[in-house]
Amino acid sequence: MTIILEDAVKKATDVKQKVCEWHSPEELKELLDLELRDCGESEARILERCRDAIRYSVKTTHPHFFNQLYAGLEPYSLVASFITDSLKPSLYTYEVSPVFTLMENAVLKKLIEIVGWEEGGDGLFNAGGSMSNMYAMNLARYRQFPEIKELGNSVAPQLAVFTSQECHYSISKAAALMGIGTKNVFVVPSDKRGKMIPSALEEQINSVKSEGGVPFIVNATAGTTVLGAFDPIDEIADICEKYKLWLHVDACWGGAVLLSNKHKLLMKGIHRVDSVAWNPHKMLMACLQCSAFLVKDKTRLLQRCHSARASYLFQQDKFYDLSYDTGDKSVQCSRKPDAFKFWLMWKALGPSELEQRVDRALAMARYLADEITKREGFRLLMEPEYANVCFWYIPPSLRDLPDGPEFQEKLHNVAPVVKERMMKKGSMMVGYQPHRGQANFFRMVVISPQVSRQDMDFVLDEIHRLGKDL
Amino acid sequence: MTIILEDAVKKATDVKQKVCEWHSPEELKELLDLELRDCGESEARILERCRDAIRYSVKTTHPHFFNQLYAGLEPYSLVASFITDSLKPSLYTYEVSPVFTLMENAVLKKLIEIVGWEEGGDGLFNAGGSMSNMYAMNLARYRQFPEIKELGNSVAPQLAVFTSQECHYSISKAAALMGIGTKNVFVVPSDKRGKMIPSALEEQINSVKSEGGVPFIVNATAGTTVLGAFDPIDEIADICEKYKLWLHVDACWGGAVLLSNKHKLLMKGIHRVDSVAWNPHKMLMACLQCSAFLVKDKTRLLQRCHSARASYLFQQDKFYDLSYDTGDKSVQCSRKPDAFKFWLMWKALGPSELEQRVDRALAMARYLADEITKREGFRLLMEPEYANVCFWYIPPSLRDLPDGPEFQEKLHNVAPVVKERMMKKGSMMVGYQPHRGQANFFRMVVISPQVSRQDMDFVLDEIHRLGKDL
Repeated sequence: MTIILEDAVKKATDVKQKVCEWHSPEELKELLDLELRDCGESEARILERCRDAIRYSVKTTHPHFFNQLYAGLEPYSLVASFITDSLKPSLYTYEVSPVFTLMENAVLKKLIEIVGWEEGGDGLFNAGGSMSNMYAMNLARYRQFPEIKELGNSVAPQLAVFTSQECHYSISKAAALMGIGTKNVFVVPSDKRGKMIPSALEEQINSVKSEGGVPFIVNATAGTTVLGAFDPIDEIADICEKYKLWLHVDACWGGAVLLSNKHKLLMKGIHRVDSVAWNPHKMLMACLQCSAFLVKDKTRLLQRCHSARASYLFQQDKFYDLSYDTGDKSVQCSRKPDAFKFWLMWKALGPSELEQRVDRALAMARYLADEITKREGFRLLMEPEYANVCFWYIPPSLRDLPDGPEFQEKLHNVAPVVKERMMKKGSMMVGYQPHRGQANFFRMVVISPQVSRQDMDFVLDEIHRLGKDL
Repeated sequence: MTIILEDAVKKATDVKQKVCEWHSPEELKELLDLELRDCGESEARILERCRDAIRYSVKTTHPHFFNQLYAGLEPYSLVASFITDSLKPSLYTYEVSPVFTLMENAVLKKLIEIVGWEEGGDGLFNAGGSMSNMYAMNLARYRQFPEIKELGNSVAPQLAVFTSQECHYSISKAAALMGIGTKNVFVVPSDKRGKMIPSALEEQINSVKSEGGVPFIVNATAGTTVLGAFDPIDEIADICEKYKLWLHVDACWGGAVLLSNKHKLLMKGIHRVDSVAWNPHKMLMACLQCSAFLVKDKTRLLQRCHSARASYLFQQDKFYDLSYDTGDKSVQCSRKPDAFKFWLMWKALGPSELEQRVDRALAMARYLADEITKREGFRLLMEPEYANVCFWYIPPSLRDLPDGPEFQEKLHNVAPVVKERMMKKGSMMVGYQPHRGQANFFRMVVISPQVSRQDMDFVLDEIHRLGKDL
C-alpha cells in the first residue's frame, strides 16, 4: 500500500516528476521481464515488479498530461474505486449489491434532474461511452421495430443513422456490430466550428427517405473529440420531432457543462432529447471508468429491449421488490458499481465545487488560447468553446514560407517530431492529429484543477524548445 | 486507507463476521441517506459514509459467500487493481499505456499457450464474458460475411447460431443486439448432465439448412452457469469442421480446469476451437473484472472486424511500431488493463499454486456432494463434475410424502424461504433457482481456497437449522 500511495498516487501527480519514462516496446519488454514462467516469485520480487509497473507507466494523472479526454486524479473517486475493488460487488441483483444498486439509482436520479427530464427517466452505468452510444442505437431501433429483437434486422427495412462528421468513432462501431452496417451511418457535414449543420441533417434525412431508407436515430455530439464542438441540440431536436426520430446526445466529453451555469447554454435543448451518454470520468475526473447512460423513456424500454430473464439470477419468487434487480437492463452480466465514484465525489464536494472545476478548466483553456494568439509561431485552429485547444506550432524555419502545399507538408511533419521528443524527454504529453485534410495540429485538453497558468505557459515554451530547430 | 484495509478487506473476509447485514431497499435508503444535495460534506462525514457503504454491502469475499460464480479475495489481483485505479491507464495506444499493453500481450500469449493453439492467436481483455461471447459471434459473422460490417445484416441470409439449452443468457442478448435475432439462436438439447448432445446439434444444423437458414457459429459451454456442465468440445469440433462453422467456447466459468492436469480433460478438444471466452475473475478469483477473449485466427480478423481507424487516436505517423496500438481491436474505446491482475497473480503464485487452488475447490465440491449423499433430508440433483453442487433440502415434514405434484410444489417453496432466512440472519449466501421444470434447488458454488470442510458442513447444518420447521 505504501508503494501505491507513494509512487502511483503522490509521485505520479508531482509536477516535478516526469510524465513518462519512454522506452520502446523491445526495451520495455526486457526491463519488465514479462514472460509468465513456471514458478512463483518472492514477495520482495513482486513488490519490485509493482514498483516497475508504476515507474514505466505513463502518469495520466500528472499535471502535464494533456493527451486524452481524461486527466488528473480525483481522490474521492479513487477511494470509491478502492472500496469497490475490495468488496467485489457486481450490479445485477439487489441481493448481492444492495448499497451500490441504490447508489446507482440515486446518481441516475440526480443526473436525470440535471439533464432536465422533469418526469424522470431511466438509465445505468456502462463500461464506457462507446457502449452507451450503442445502447442508444439499440433502444431507438427497438422502439421503432421491436420485432428485430427476436427476428433480426433482416425483417426490417434499411435502417439509417445520422451523425455529424465530427462524431466519435463508436457510432460506426456500433452500427457495424449491430448489423446495421457502417454504410447506413449517414455523415452530416459540420460547419467550420465543428457543429452539425441542421439544414444539412434535414436534407440527408429526406434524401435517405426518398431512396427507401428508414431513419431511426440522430446522434448529436456535445463536445466532439478533436475540436470540442457542441452540435446545436435545440435545432436538431426540432428536426427529430418533425420526423419522429430518436435523438441521442453523445455528451461523454461535454456533459460536464450542465453543471456550470456559465456554460450550460452550450447544451441548450438537452431536456428534449431521448437519451444521453455522459462520462464523469472525463471532465469530472472520476477514476476510469464512470460512464452514465440516461434515457428519457418511462415505459421500461431499457429493460424490455435488453432483458433475457435468466431464471437462475432473476428469480421471481424473491422476498423483496424485484424492481431493484436492475441487471437485466444491461447487455453485460457482471457490471461494476461505477456510480459510487460519482456519488462519493458529489457528497464530498457538492455541486458548486464541481461547477468551479468546470469553469476553471474552461477559463484555463481560454487563457491558453489567448497566449497562443499572442505568441509568435503559434496559430490557433479556432477559438475554443470548450476544453479542447487546437493549434499549430510553426518553427522559425517555416515562418517566412508562404502558405501553400510546401508549407502545409512541412507543417504536417512538425507535430509528430515534437511529440516524439516530448515523449522521449518525458516532460509532458499532448496529442496531435491530422483532421479534415489539415496539417497535423496539437490538441490540448485542459481538465485538471491541478493545472495552472504556469503549466499552460510551460506547454507552449516546451513545444517551442522541442521544435524550434525543425 | 485504514478503513478500507480493516473493514473492506480484513473484516469482510473474516468468517466470524456476517456475510451481509440485510435491510430492505426502503430501510437501506434511510440508513445511507443517498440523496445528492447542494452542499459538500466534511471529511469526517465522508469517512463515515465509506464505512457505511462497506458495512451494508454484501461481503462477496467472505468464506460463506457461495451465491455467484465468483468469490474470495485474491490479494495480488487486488494490489493490481489498486495500482491501475491510481494510474488511470486506458488500453488503446502503446504511447498512453506502454506497460499494460505489453502485459496484456504477455498474458494473452500464455493463455493461448494453455489453450493449445500452437501457432499462436490473438485476443484482448473485455469488460466481461458477455462481451467476449458477443465478440465471438461478430468475428464468426465477419469471417463468413465480411460485407455485413458495411452493409448490415439485411444483405445476408438468415444467420443461425447454435448453443445448448444450458448456455449463458449472453448468447441470446448478443444475438438480439447484433441484429441476428433471438429466434435465430437455435437451442440444442442437453443430456441429463447438462451437456450438449452432439447428434442433436447436427440434426438442428441440417434442419436449419434445409429451411434456408445459414449456420455460422456454434457456442459450446465449458462450465454451465447452473449445473457446471462441460459440453463435449471434441465431438462438437468434429461437427463444426464438417459444416465449416466457427466454434466458440464460453469457458468463462470452466476455463480454469485448463490449469489442472487432473481436470483438464473436461475440455478435451479445446485446441481445435476458433475462440474462447475465459474469466479469471471467476474460479481464479481475480478482482472483478478480468475477462479474456482469445481467438485462434492469425490474419488480424479481430482488428479487421472491429476497426474504425480513428485518425485522432491511431495516428499513422507515430515513431514506434503501430502493432502495439491494440485499441482498434475493441468495440470499446477506453478499456481497463485487467490483464495486469492475472499477470501479477501468476508472477507471484506460479501455475502450480493456481492448479492447486482449482484442484482444491473441486475436491471441496466433491466432499460437499458426498456429505449431501450421506445426510438425511438432502438430495443431490446430480454428481458434480465441477464446482457447482446442486441439491434439494427436504424438511422433515416432507420426508414421508411420496414424490408427486404436491411434494414438488412444497419442495419448490423451501429454497426461497431458507434463502430469505439466511439473508436476514446474514450467516451465508447460497443461490437457488428453478430449472427445466424442476423444483427450486440450491446451487452451491465452491471456489475460494479459504474454504474448508468445516465451511461445507456449516452450509448443510445451517440450511437444516433454517429450514427444518418448513
